[in-house]
Parts: sequence; C-alpha cells; structure tokens
Amino acid sequence: MVKVTVWNENRHEQKNQAVREVYPQGIHGAIADFLQQDYQVKTATLDEPAHGLTDAVLDDTDVLIWWGHIAHDEVDDGIVEKVKQRILGGMGLIVLHSGHFSKIFKALMGTTCDLKWREADEKERLWVVDPSHPIAEGVGEYIELDKEEMYGEHFDIPAPDQLVFLSWFAGGEVFRSGCTYQRGKGKIFYFRPGHETYPTYYHEDVQRVIKNAVQWAKPVKRPAPVYGNVKPLEAIKTKN
Amino acid sequence: MVKVTVWNENRHEQKNQAVREVYPQGIHGAIADFLQQDYQVKTATLDEPAHGLTDAVLDDTDVLIWWGHIAHDEVDDGIVEKVKQRILGGMGLIVLHSGHFSKIFKALMGTTCDLKWREADEKERLWVVDPSHPIAEGVGEYIELDKEEMYGEHFDIPAPDQLVFLSWFAGGEVFRSGCTYQRGKGKIFYFRPGHETYPTYYHEDVQRVIKNAVQWAKPVKRPAPVYGNVKPLEAIKTKN
Amino acid sequence: MVKVTVWNENRHEQKNQAVREVYPQGIHGAIADFLQQDYQVKTATLDEPAHGLTDAVLDDTDVLIWWGHIAHDEVDDGIVEKVKQRILGGMGLIVLHSGHFSKIFKALMGTTCDLKWREADEKERLWVVDPSHPIAEGVGEYIELDKEEMYGEHFDIPAPDQLVFLSWFAGGEVFRSGCTYQRGKGKIFYFRPGHETYPTYYHEDVQRVIKNAVQWAKPVKRPAPVYGNVKPLEAIKTKN
Amino acid sequence: MVKVTVWNENRHEQKNQAVREVYPQGIHGAIADFLQQDYQVKTATLDEPAHGLTDAVLDDTDVLIWWGHIAHDEVDDGIVEKVKQRILGGMGLIVLHSGHFSKIFKALMGTTCDLKWREADEKERLWVVDPSHPIAEGVGEYIELDKEEMYGEHFDIPAPDQLVFLSWFAGGEVFRSGCTYQRGKGKIFYFRPGHETYPTYYHEDVQRVIKNAVQWAKPVKRPAPVYGNVKPLEAIKTKN
Repeated sequence: MVKVTVWNENRHEQKNQAVREVYPQGIHGAIADFLQQDYQVKTATLDEPAHGLTDAVLDDTDVLIWWGHIAHDEVDDGIVEKVKQRILGGMGLIVLHSGHFSKIFKALMGTTCDLKWREADEKERLWVVDPSHPIAEGVGEYIELDKEEMYGEHFDIPAPDQLVFLSWFAGGEVFRSGCTYQRGKGKIFYFRPGHETYPTYYHEDVQRVIKNAVQWAKPVKRPAPVYGNVKPLEAIKTKN
Repeated sequence: MVKVTVWNENRHEQKNQAVREVYPQGIHGAIADFLQQDYQVKTATLDEPAHGLTDAVLDDTDVLIWWGHIAHDEVDDGIVEKVKQRILGGMGLIVLHSGHFSKIFKALMGTTCDLKWREADEKERLWVVDPSHPIAEGVGEYIELDKEEMYGEHFDIPAPDQLVFLSWFAGGEVFRSGCTYQRGKGKIFYFRPGHETYPTYYHEDVQRVIKNAVQWAKPVKRPAPVYGNVKPLEAIKTKN
Repeated sequence: MVKVTVWNENRHEQKNQAVREVYPQGIHGAIADFLQQDYQVKTATLDEPAHGLTDAVLDDTDVLIWWGHIAHDEVDDGIVEKVKQRILGGMGLIVLHSGHFSKIFKALMGTTCDLKWREADEKERLWVVDPSHPIAEGVGEYIELDKEEMYGEHFDIPAPDQLVFLSWFAGGEVFRSGCTYQRGKGKIFYFRPGHETYPTYYHEDVQRVIKNAVQWAKPVKRPAPVYGNVKPLEAIKTKN
Repeated sequence: MVKVTVWNENRHEQKNQAVREVYPQGIHGAIADFLQQDYQVKTATLDEPAHGLTDAVLDDTDVLIWWGHIAHDEVDDGIVEKVKQRILGGMGLIVLHSGHFSKIFKALMGTTCDLKWREADEKERLWVVDPSHPIAEGVGEYIELDKEEMYGEHFDIPAPDQLVFLSWFAGGEVFRSGCTYQRGKGKIFYFRPGHETYPTYYHEDVQRVIKNAVQWAKPVKRPAPVYGNVKPLEAIKTKN
C-alpha cells in the first residue's frame, strides 16, 4: 500500500475563522481523509519539530503532498534540501495550488514559478488535454469549480513533461493547471486548485485527481544510478 | 487483469529453421509465455482470417503487442485503420524491433520510421536514461545483449514524449531504443530489441520491460472526448 | 531570402460574398501580401493543375503555408504524399485554422486532429505560454481577437514539442492554439486563428506570428540522414 | 550583431602546462577566437573582479557561454543568482562540458547534474538525432572526436526540451550530449565536448555547433511577462 505524507503549512487555519469553517481539521486533514480509503496516510505541518519531516517520517513516505502559502520562507532550508534529495532519490511529490511558490518546488523547477492571481469568487474549468493520462482516469471532459482563486499565465515553469489539465477562468485567463515533471528518480505533479477559503478539496473530481496522482507518483523500484569515475565496459583501442 | 493480444507476422518461423529452433512456438508464443504469469494473453498472426484481429478479439484487448518484419505490406489496410482507431480510442500498443516499419506504427508516427541496420552478432547495451519511469522498474543501469542486430540513428520518428532507453552498439552507433508516445486516448511504447535469430525474448530484463510496458500502456477508464459543434458553456456577450 | 508558398483551398471566396468582401484577393492573397515585405512569396490554390503544387513550385519552396476547410477530400492523395515527403526532407509547414483537418496535417500527426467548434462571434484571447520562443517575438502577453470561431479541447493531436499559445474563449473553452512539431528534417507550426468570415489575417499580431513562424520553420541546411544497411564504424570483436 | 560573453574558470590553464599548450590563450580565448568571425565577443574569467560578470558586462550580453571545472564552488552565490535572473529574463546560456556541475546549471535544472566520467583518450561520436534542429545546421551525420573524456548515463538532468546530439563512447557508454531547455524568457543549450587537455574547441564541427547555438539562444524581443495581482479582463458574473 502506497504511503503518503500530507504536508500543510496550517497557518490560515489557525488565523482565519472562515478557513477553519471550511477545513475544521485543516487542509491536511481534509486531504488525508479522502486518501485514507486507498493509501496509508500521515500528516505533517510547519509548526511541528522539523516541520514534521523527520528522517523517520521521510523513510516511511512514498509520496509527499505539499500545501503552503503565507509562510514559505519559514520552511527551513536544510529540510528543503533533505526533501529535495529524497525526491531525486525516488519519492513522489504532489504540489498543490499556492505551493507553486514553495522553496521545494522552486528548487526543483529552476525558475521563479511566478504567475498572475486574483481572488474574485471566479469560475474555473479544468479541461483534460491528455485523455490518455492515468492522472485523468475517471474524470470527464472537464472539472468545473464554481468559485476559485484565479491563477493566470504566464506561469514561469519549465515546459511540463506532460500537460494534463488546462484551466479556463471567467475573468479571461488560462493556466497550465496539471503538469508533470521527472527529476532524478522522482516524479512530480503540480495541481492548481485549492485556495484555502473554498471547499475545493471536498470536490469529488479534485479528490480523484489527487488519488490518481499518488498512484502515478509512487517510487519505481530499481537501483539508484551510479555516478562518478568508472572503468570502461569495453576495451579501448589506443591508436599510435 | 489486463488483457494482452500478442500479434506476430509469424513468417520467419515458417521459412527459417534457425528461427524455428530459437522460437519453436513462434515469437508470439515466447512472448505470450512469459506474459501469462501476470496477464490474460491471446495471440494472433498474419495468416489467420483478419490476421487474427477480429472485432471480437480487439473488443477483448487492452494492450496489443506487434512484431512484424518481412510481410508488412501484406497487412490489410482496413485492419490497420481499424487497429489505429482502437489505439486512438484507448488500446495500448507495444511495437517491437522491426515493427518500426509496420503500417500501424508509421500511421501513428507520421514519419518514415527509417533507420540504419546491420546484422553482425553485435553487442547491444540499453542504458536507462529515465530512472523514474515505470517501464524501467526492476531494471539495473543497463540491459546487455551479447548478440543482436544493430539499429542506428538517425531513427526517423517524432521526438518521443519520454525516452526511457538508449542503445550503445559495438560497431559505433547509438539508438533511441525505448520511446513512449501518446496518441488520442492510447499509449504507445516502441522497444528496439528482438531480432528473430537471437534468443532476446528469453532475456529476463527484456521480459521485465515488456511486462512493465503492458502495465503502463493499459487503457485509462474515462469517457471518450466529445468532438464537433458544441453550445457555449458560458453566455457570450455580443457587442453592438 | 526565404521562399514561401501560400496554399489556399480558395472555395469560400468563390461561393460566399461575405468572405469575398473580407478577402477580395482570397485568404492566400491577404497572407501573401503581408509576407512579401520580408519573403519571396508565391501562392497556389486547389483548382490549379496539381493544386498549384508542381515539382517546380515545391523545388522553389522553403516554407509552405496551408489553409483549407470545405474541400479537404478533394486534395489528391498523391500530391499529399509528395508534400509530406518534402516536409520530411526539410520544407517547413505552417498549418492555419481549419487546416487541422487537412490530409497533410493528419498524415503528419497520426491522429484524428478532431476538436470542438462553434461559430458565435466569440472573443478569443491567445496567451503566450513560452516567452522564450522566437515565434512569439514582438507579441505582448496575449493576442486578442474580438470575434472568431471557437475551437475547443480536447484537440486530438500528439503532445506538441513546444506549446507557444493557449487560447481562451468567451464561451468557456480553452485550446492549444500555437503548437510546434518536428517531423524528419522538417518543422511544423499549427496556428489556430483565421476563420474565413473574420478579418483575422489583417490583425497585426497574427501577421507577426506567421512571419516569425516562417523564419522559424525554414529548412536547416545539412545532408539528409543515411538509412539502410551500413558497415560498422568500429571493429566488432566476435567471441568464440 | 549578437553579443556573446565567453566565461571561463581559467584555472587549468594557469596550473597545467599541458593545458596551456593546447589553449595558450585559455579555453575562453580559443572560443572567443572562432566566434569573433560572426559575433561581438567578450571574455570573462573567475579571477577578475565579480568574476568579470559586472552589471555593465551582463547588460551588454545576449548569450553567455560557460566553461568551469575545478573551481565551481569559488563562484560567488550572489553572482550566480544575478546570472540566473538574467537568463530567466532572456539572456541565452550555453553550458560546455564540465560546466554540467556549475552552480548556474544546477540552479536552472533543479537536479544534481551528476554523471559517469573517465579519462582514457577515448573516441567519442556525437550522432545528430534531431535533423531539423538549427543547432545541427551544417553538421553531417555525426561529429567524431578521436580522443575525449567520457561522460556516461545516467546524466541526472530533467528530460531535455529537445535532444539534438547523442554520444557514443568506445568504452561502452552513451550520453545525451546536446540538450536544449527553456527557462523563463531564456534559452539554454548544454553541449558535452571539451575536456581541457584535448584540442576539441579547434574542431570545425564543434565550433559550428557553438556558433549555431549562439544564434539559437539569442534573446527574443518582447515585453517581460506580468506577474502578481491582476484585474479581470472580462466581467465576472457572481451567482447568488
């Protein structure tokens, strides 16, 4: 059974009554809740020691889910580096919504990961553009979210390896909202929806996509690549 | 359980004693044999009615494996078109070795699929270049085949969506030997090894790759996309 | 100076007074007109002998532009095959709007190239998603077309090598509207806008994109790849 | 005329007589020399103030070429960050050989950029796998280097946007040796050859590739994308 750790900054929930009403157990609690049907799930949050991401926890994690927003800079650089090495070593990573600006996502992308945004109770429609992709399994032509925050292009990311969803927003923008990447032995999925004031993570299709993404991102079992100085596998003739 | 149909031209086996000695049940028989441990497997060959690819067979196929070489032009155009529509509709396709020149692969690629080749009992080493890919699960740094036919670049294919294996050949060439493509709802994997006079399909790692590829290529369950004239989802304001 | 041939079906212009008023010299005439400032330009149309695409014309063409709609099936298969071989041999191809359903584009893509559509005098906004791409040179954040035909996802094409533009439509759809592909030695650009009843090809940014695309798609001068049976470049040791 | 700055660590040249004999003006001098025929060229080295990469120099640079090896960690982090922002803003970057381990390349890739290596006076053959790419203009089927350092897979980079060259090595390895990436408004080309003890940068085809890459990587002129909080472009209806 795939082992998932759901990491959440968990600050909006403490500061903002409106968010707490939507997510009384925190965003991490809501995500853990629907994943528990299929996976072995833990949660971790910013204010725990080591942000809840100890070696023991990471040793026991196949796929890490990341939600952060207002406290990206409070995430310790050493822990970011440790998580990055885990991902390069095979752990899957699912970055949600405002996690686009997290240290871990920026470090893996190599770009600013900047974008346009607007909070206007705005309709979002996520169109499936890769109908063959397992992350879209069970999803219809599009996912419609009645009210969400808008994220708009240009989204400053490397061209995704695979583009699964494209968002339409009522206010006139579009967004690459479901993007896959490979980094080392690890697989990464960025999924746009999930502003803290909307009940997005209770939406059946949003849950389905995250469940599918866990399955897709789980580690591949094989030896780590060998690096460094190596002997030839074949005899090298030297001309004289 | 994923349902696999192994299609083989099955001509070398009839004409050539040396091939028959390597593959007494045909190449399709050898491939079916190792897949049966994990999948529900059928075989089909060129000389059967409808090349063994009736609607009933295709209705009951999740992933089609294709081996052909000297009789590509005897494959009926109507059946090629039918198989193509199935793939665009979600059936997986694994094209092996000389299948690069099959009508079905060329129709899906849009290029000549031409390449260099040489039969010289030559060492091939297939390096894993995407260590995160599920098709490489369980494989070490490379697969070594002591004697194989050489295929060399330029290989006239579209740039693969994902490049999983790169081959080194003793005679001086390289080859993109494990390539994935998405076409419609279908997923396609091209895998280079498997000349008819060598026992390549008995090699444990070659078998592992084909097994992994079946799992990767299986159809994603979701409704077919809607095409054609559609009504707006949102009211369109007309300026006057 | 890059040599461009603008091919147009030129049927709407003959049948429909409204189209003739927008494009009195035909769509090909309008496109040729703005390209002539920078390139050496010819035109060719369906009803000319060999559809205007004789060997002499193709010998003298670096980049071919293609606009067709209601008479795709009247294009001769032999000429399609000839044009395809030219593209694989290095000639650039720019496919416009309803050319998505042309025989030449479908043959190069390997998919149905189907899509959603609607004629509703609808606003289109083409967002630049690859700000580094030379095809977007000189274009702002987006191109806005006040009235256009809608094309919507799913667009049944292979994942583009590079995605340059994404369209937003007022009625609720999105579309991958600027897509590049490599096939053989040739480069292909699909660009969505240009329904026959709108003055789209007079729009300054649409013209700029097509000009940029010609420059991008021009042939690369180098020898054609060698295919077939080849001798080894290195001595092959045979074990005994 | 495109403005190029050739940056070189320039340490081997100071420490090692053998290197000095191959490159009496330094590697940067040799590269600048052949680029001066077509471009406006400056050089910069590690031991200059600000490593020679002042704002004035960067303001006057369209494409930066980077060669480093034994002193990557002496490159100032602030300067690396400044160069990174320039690249995201549109400056082209060509990373050569051991520059794979430079801070700037690793920061843009998000991976370790690790690889296998061996110094054994070994033959390298770089095969062109994308015959349509302008970086391969004028190059034959392959470039042969009689003696080079070996770099072998797995090369821990993100899957390249475009793969132009694949290397074969006599000792049994392969390598993705010509890779393009887009990051922000900038374009990046990694090109493998160029160990300091070999006269690789005097090879006509190596020079041709670097010249082509400069042309390909030059900045695209268009406004920088807008990021942050934006107003809607269309009226947003709020349901009640």
